[in-house]
Amino acid sequence: MTAMAMQARVPAMNMGRDTALCEKLFDTLRAATFDGVGITRESFGASESRALDIVENAARECGLATERDAGGNLVATLAGSRPGLPFLACGSHLDSVPQGGNYDGGAGVIAGLAVLAGLRRDGFAPRRTIKLFGLRGEESAWFGKAYLGSSALFGRLTPDDLASPHAVTGRSLEDCMGDAGADIDRIVRGEPLLDRKTVAAWVELHIEQGPVLVARDLPIGIVTGIRGNVRHRTVECIGEAGHSGAVPRWLRRDAVFATAELITHLDRHWRTLLERGRDLVITSGIMGTESAEHAIARIPGSVKFSFEARSQNQETLEAFYDLFLSECAGIGDERGVEFKLDRRLQSAPASMDPAWVDRLRAAARDLGLPDEPIPSGAGHDAAVFANAGIPSAMIFIRNENGSHNPHEDMKMGDFMSGVAVMRRVLAEAAL
Amino acid sequence: MTAMAMQARVPAMNMGRDTALCEKLFDTLRAATFDGVGITRESFGASESRALDIVENAARECGLATERDAGGNLVATLAGSRPGLPFLACGSHLDSVPQGGNYDGGAGVIAGLAVLAGLRRDGFAPRRTIKLFGLRGEESAWFGKAYLGSSALFGRLTPDDLASPHAVTGRSLEDCMGDAGADIDRIVRGEPLLDRKTVAAWVELHIEQGPVLVARDLPIGIVTGIRGNVRHRTVECIGEAGHSGAVPRWLRRDAVFATAELITHLDRHWRTLLERGRDLVITSGIMGTESAEHAIARIPGSVKFSFEARSQNQETLEAFYDLFLSECAGIGDERGVEFKLDRRLQSAPASMDPAWVDRLRAAARDLGLPDEPIPSGAGHDAAVFANAGIPSAMIFIRNENGSHNPHEDMKMGDFMSGVAVMRRVLAEAAL
Repeated sequence: MTAMAMQARVPAMNMGRDTALCEKLFDTLRAATFDGVGITRESFGASESRALDIVENAARECGLATERDAGGNLVATLAGSRPGLPFLACGSHLDSVPQGGNYDGGAGVIAGLAVLAGLRRDGFAPRRTIKLFGLRGEESAWFGKAYLGSSALFGRLTPDDLASPHAVTGRSLEDCMGDAGADIDRIVRGEPLLDRKTVAAWVELHIEQGPVLVARDLPIGIVTGIRGNVRHRTVECIGEAGHSGAVPRWLRRDAVFATAELITHLDRHWRTLLERGRDLVITSGIMGTESAEHAIARIPGSVKFSFEARSQNQETLEAFYDLFLSECAGIGDERGVEFKLDRRLQSAPASMDPAWVDRLRAAARDLGLPDEPIPSGAGHDAAVFANAGIPSAMIFIRNENGSHNPHEDMKMGDFMSGVAVMRRVLAEAAL
Repeated sequence: MTAMAMQARVPAMNMGRDTALCEKLFDTLRAATFDGVGITRESFGASESRALDIVENAARECGLATERDAGGNLVATLAGSRPGLPFLACGSHLDSVPQGGNYDGGAGVIAGLAVLAGLRRDGFAPRRTIKLFGLRGEESAWFGKAYLGSSALFGRLTPDDLASPHAVTGRSLEDCMGDAGADIDRIVRGEPLLDRKTVAAWVELHIEQGPVLVARDLPIGIVTGIRGNVRHRTVECIGEAGHSGAVPRWLRRDAVFATAELITHLDRHWRTLLERGRDLVITSGIMGTESAEHAIARIPGSVKFSFEARSQNQETLEAFYDLFLSECAGIGDERGVEFKLDRRLQSAPASMDPAWVDRLRAAARDLGLPDEPIPSGAGHDAAVFANAGIPSAMIFIRNENGSHNPHEDMKMGDFMSGVAVMRRVLAEAAL
């Protein structure tokens, strides 16, 4: 089928009605989960359930069938004529961090609803079923770990995960999931709640949590991959304390100067790798000398700092990590200090499906929108779907002020552009 | 008079008797001021007075005249035949930091006593009077400011200084000085207690508080100058916080990377200046990100750090400070951060008198000792004498483990070498 022939069978989007639907739903969600400062929708808690109910009611009003799956997530369905075919899935999560914003997660669910409801209203009859997921428990703020809802779908929650206490109440994740209607026995057994072979693709729309689209004046971006990371919570540089006036440079083992040199060398390697086209970000978010020993006139004998490298590419991560180790050894040797590393933590990158990335980019171009590929630095449920073997793709929406705060600022025009792209690719794939 | 002729009139030192005198006095001082962990001799307090009493008794037993001056300091005198000539002064301080060591300060006073007592015992009849000062209040640990005893001698204590509260009791310096027998009215009026024109020279022996003599295997060193400093208690690098995964390098304003680059550039300038023969040490003893915002996954928006440059040369200090300001501006510009400096603090370097440095070096060579010139990074009363216009000089004694701790480790052999050098120059200058 040619692109023109396909488009002929996908009805034109009614931007006015779809925008009105979405605006109303954003307002209702905000009003129901405003905490006085920002938005709070607690993972597997009452405020998250309230959000699921609101979206479920809206879906029913639009004539969509709804249900709760075995993970307690909301599922709304636009049934296709060939139910035996793997279905198309879209959506995002409905929980938020405490005092967060209305769009992180919510935007992807409302976008999916607009697509399903709009296609149904416009008389579109797909062969392939399209399902919207309103997922629970994506934010790590509540139980210390992210992607709980999507991980449960693929049998990926460990006993340790399920025993994790709620950050405020201390109640276990297992109990909270049970309260929220999840089939906790299957989850505890590590049984997949969703057969990945039944899912043809996962498409997730999300606000960008970084500033790239704003800085480059792009309303949307097409995500190419979700960065993984390598981390050390604490690296300690151990030198030797001494009188700042009395020890000359050649006898110093200054932990601050050694650490500064390490960071500066890492920065240089980072620039080089970027120039070679590698995807990479490096951060040392926590750094400090020992406060018990603080004195202007004291050569610092110890500095502790955190280390994080993120990349879409595992090989880049490993290559950079090797550079990090080699710089620690070299600078340690030269300056008579030792860099002591705690346990290496890591999370694997996830690649978006190249064919789906191409479809999204082509749809964006057809709609007169930029088709800029962009990596996702933050994690998303799409990483769990992708790593479960489901072809996955994401659309990012321009957003000011980052996320995880009440000042998220997504414009409805940008959002609806993203909805239009998603509608186009899902409808075409469902034909 | 030729050197040989002079030496002929200075009696040979009786190393055995002088060593025994010094060892006994060190032991007595230690026993009287041991605090259970280290040595505590509180500035203008009872434990410092006890130390003065012990040295005064020893001086009297050796037949020296003693008195307390208008600053409450101990003065022991070996009278010369020409009392109208400016006298030679030696000594150091008798206070210590809390839980400090027995040698920081005490060594210089005991050395002076050994010289005066030894010369007297050996029948030396000087033309010029030699006085030993057992000074009070050199350590900044008690009232926040150093050199209190010597500053009082030259009318250099301000009303703010005199109002400074004791670190433990809160009692004012003025009251504590009064308790210790100082003529507080004259001190308050800023009246010099010692006419600098009556003092021909100040010679101070002190343990080295740095590791240079140990590292270079030298028993003593001849001090060329006392470093001054330029400081900022707090420099704040203000960048912008952000999600560590979501903000690419070109949009970052990372305060840690900017500060690391600053320190690394300062280190490079430091090395260059050292290669050009400048005296300089640079320290950033305190550094840290904001603990309230600590997260591995957060680009640090702020880092605070202290800045200190020390040099014997004011011009080097100013040149380096200019480099510092220019690096702050350049890196700030390039990285989109701002370096905010608090009030600049400074203390002037003091030069040792070149003629006296030469005498000390010549005496060391004559005695078969190394005559290595060495800067003093730490401050000493000699800086106050020098900046009051009195030709001043210092002998450093090798010492392990730094000072201001109970682990100071000066060997008696090294100490007695320093005493021999001091005896030689004082006796020759008194002829």
